[in-house]
Amino acid sequence: MPKQVKTAITPTRAEDYPEWYQQVIKVSDLAERSPVRGCMVIKPWGYALWENIVREMDAMFKATGVRNAYFPLFIPLSFLEKEAQHVEGFAKECAVVTHHKLEQGPDGRLVPAGLLPEPLIVRPTSETIIGDSFSRWIKSHRDLPMLLNQWCNVVRWEMRTRIFLRTSEFLWQEGHTAHATAEEAIERTRMMLDVYARMAEDYLAIPVVRGRKTASERFPGAVDTLCIEAMMQDRKALQAGTSHFLGQNFARASEIKFHTADESEEYAWTTSWGSSTRLIGGLIMAHSDDDGLIMPPRVASSHVALLPIWRTPDERPAVMAYTAELAARLRAVRYGNRNVQVEIDDRDTGGARGWDWIKRGIPLRVEIGPRDIAADAVFFGRRDLPAREKSALSRDQFVAEIVRILDEIQQKLFNRALSLKKENTILIDRQEEFYRFFTPLNADKPEIHGGFAMSHWCGSETCENRVKEDLKVTIRCLPFEDQTGPGACICCGKPSPQRVVFAKAY
Amino acid sequence: MPKQVKTAITPTRAEDYPEWYQQVIKVSDLAERSPVRGCMVIKPWGYALWENIVREMDAMFKATGVRNAYFPLFIPLSFLEKEAQHVEGFAKECAVVTHHKLEQGPDGRLVPAGLLPEPLIVRPTSETIIGDSFSRWIKSHRDLPMLLNQWCNVVRWEMRTRIFLRTSEFLWQEGHTAHATAEEAIERTRMMLDVYARMAEDYLAIPVVRGRKTASERFPGAVDTLCIEAMMQDRKALQAGTSHFLGQNFARASEIKFHTADESEEYAWTTSWGSSTRLIGGLIMAHSDDDGLIMPPRVASSHVALLPIWRTPDERPAVMAYTAELAARLRAVRYGNRNVQVEIDDRDTGGARGWDWIKRGIPLRVEIGPRDIAADAVFFGRRDLPAREKSALSRDQFVAEIVRILDEIQQKLFNRALSLKKENTILIDRQEEFYRFFTPLNADKPEIHGGFAMSHWCGSETCENRVKEDLKVTIRCLPFEDQTGPGACICCGKPSPQRVVFAKAY
Repeated sequence: MPKQVKTAITPTRAEDYPEWYQQVIKVSDLAERSPVRGCMVIKPWGYALWENIVREMDAMFKATGVRNAYFPLFIPLSFLEKEAQHVEGFAKECAVVTHHKLEQGPDGRLVPAGLLPEPLIVRPTSETIIGDSFSRWIKSHRDLPMLLNQWCNVVRWEMRTRIFLRTSEFLWQEGHTAHATAEEAIERTRMMLDVYARMAEDYLAIPVVRGRKTASERFPGAVDTLCIEAMMQDRKALQAGTSHFLGQNFARASEIKFHTADESEEYAWTTSWGSSTRLIGGLIMAHSDDDGLIMPPRVASSHVALLPIWRTPDERPAVMAYTAELAARLRAVRYGNRNVQVEIDDRDTGGARGWDWIKRGIPLRVEIGPRDIAADAVFFGRRDLPAREKSALSRDQFVAEIVRILDEIQQKLFNRALSLKKENTILIDRQEEFYRFFTPLNADKPEIHGGFAMSHWCGSETCENRVKEDLKVTIRCLPFEDQTGPGACICCGKPSPQRVVFAKAY
Repeated sequence: MPKQVKTAITPTRAEDYPEWYQQVIKVSDLAERSPVRGCMVIKPWGYALWENIVREMDAMFKATGVRNAYFPLFIPLSFLEKEAQHVEGFAKECAVVTHHKLEQGPDGRLVPAGLLPEPLIVRPTSETIIGDSFSRWIKSHRDLPMLLNQWCNVVRWEMRTRIFLRTSEFLWQEGHTAHATAEEAIERTRMMLDVYARMAEDYLAIPVVRGRKTASERFPGAVDTLCIEAMMQDRKALQAGTSHFLGQNFARASEIKFHTADESEEYAWTTSWGSSTRLIGGLIMAHSDDDGLIMPPRVASSHVALLPIWRTPDERPAVMAYTAELAARLRAVRYGNRNVQVEIDDRDTGGARGWDWIKRGIPLRVEIGPRDIAADAVFFGRRDLPAREKSALSRDQFVAEIVRILDEIQQKLFNRALSLKKENTILIDRQEEFYRFFTPLNADKPEIHGGFAMSHWCGSETCENRVKEDLKVTIRCLPFEDQTGPGACICCGKPSPQRVVFAKAY
């Protein structure tokens, strides 16, 4: 038997991946379940991650000409009903506001009062309420394109929830654009998908597959849904952002019309695109290990934990002064769109302190004691390396190289995730191999197995559903790359124009 | 009769101040009413203002050790009921979620379905739901102080709404802190009030009075409510931020207890403090004129509008190239926590274009034509000066001095608002003068009158209510400064320890 390695997280990924995920969130202090069914509390360490994601993504949106705005939380029921597929998709899981005050009931308890003439839906997404504004704002081709985004909370009444991945309330952004031509709207749909891909790869260090959803997996009311799909460490897929070409469907539903240059009247072509706090779930599952969270430096809640150490009280002042000075020097260094973020942890908790920061996923830990000061040396641990492995640099070198070190960690996390994805993305052409690929070796212990199967599909919903029913495997997307030409459907053997990505998914 | 000056806004401030306010919001394209009762749509030009306010205020919060987090939108009814005064204050005007899905009714229309076991309240403020988290997170004095803030939307079902000033849904921040001692909590309450005052004065260019609310104007459940009050151009007061010392009231209600250093158990002392999109309403009413919005540069949605002008098509390329180059040079200049923001408006709308930017309140407008290019001169209009008044600088000078010019406008707006406040803040000791001060000269046309009356008050709710009933004037605050010692109550003549601020208010 191999030697048992003690890990900070119980269970390990191999032992119980879903429970490991919950434990990482707990020990890293990112978030927790709230007493409100299906809702989460995002704690400061988790919210800082979100703030960093928002800052970077918002800058990318604005660079493409998008501006932010804010639309009402509530959607009148009649608005939701305007688009047939849309209401079908969202009416089943929404929070409904029916009253506007509380009054004391006969038993003295408060009861809802002030019945609203029309129920209001807490937005599950804002196409219909934004469409109403667009219909008033857009009159002429000169008003187009209209490129808006909204950062907000949305609510979908999920029955089975998991923090960050699927919660009744979550934070997200939803972009909404209107265009004079279908071509321009299609181009925008793809452009925003590319922003998501850049966010995932360059900031979250998660390689993704870009592609198109099948008809059955499309956004309710969309003509075309593009997505990015990432592979988690359990080899399941996570949809990390979607971009929808809505054709003229929502423009017709909301009467978004414009006068063309030759004074005819046409419906606008619209798009919408969204990404959410789900990205944090993806980040956790892509990088973290059996010792806890690992955060890519570019979006990390913080970068460096300084841990001053003293044996006797008289050593303390010098150690604290040295620590404060190092913190000040590091904080003056620019790293991307912010400065290097430093935590000083002077709690008197001994070795547990270092493990705390490992579990919380901070990229760098520095212990500072009298001997280090005497030697003018900085001994630091990197979160991407084993906990006991330490590097040393002079203080000046450490400050001078902090950006390079952080970039190196960022790159290494990406490379590691890319290797995982490459190793577990398999071209499969035989049905029996396909079924074996997605079947756990041991049904009692569904350990990590499967991955992305690049296989052929005839395009029929029958075959798509067959695979879904048999294996709980779905077509994640028709990828834009690596299609390898035509072949035979993995399910029925009929001709297939291209390979698609099959996987189990979150 | 004086010569009639044509203004961009009808009516003018003197003619109809409330309607002028609505018109400024309309022509400046900041926001509009939504089809959802009492809710607003914040348009991009208005949302950019909010983004700037958020960025500056968030940095100030963080500099005091506060971290951001996110708590659920929904509050179980039972939570709201925990604090008696609190439920009393908020139960009358809240959005109540009673169902979690929609189903087709007998007539085919969708109706609420899936009745919730307990109604959920859309947060009007989050003391109770955050208190629940605090009760789990705080165990020991070592967990204190806990200093959190949340940026979010809240809902209060207002019957009479006015955009930015009072809407059913609004955006705000709510800070929530817990401390080991009353002294520390009281100090934090004051510290955050000072942050609000700095935000108002240094960024929004609005001078404020800091003070304490009377018992009847306190936040429901608070021991002490501090506030900043600003004077609008109609001389009414606007409460622009409040900071509450909650004593142990909410700690008792939510069971927020901690072990002290000597292992006894105590309730924590908590505070909360909030400011909202109402600040935008204050900004509009403090600075704007009869030509539209005026934005203080430090929070302005943008800083400079470049308006290229050409008579013949062959002049266009050179003018546009010059404009683009000037824009690039200006955008490279740092101004506070962001770079100078530049709009290029090449619409072919002639003189209307310049007026558009005046109405939208941009600090600087630059017209760029072939002659200006030939002379290497930048002719610019400042929003704080009359529309037809232009200044000229060489292009290099304009770029070199842009920060100084913006700062000068910022300072001038503050000085102008300060003069208004000083001129209309009057020490009044005689009751008849007090009543005259607050009584419109002509009841048919309640033009601008009154202001802040610094008068004595005995401390009784009877006198407070008498003035309120007679004049619709309230005690805005017991100011921290300019108290001028004891005197006799303006209402009953009994002894008063200090002057208070009486005013009509938004």
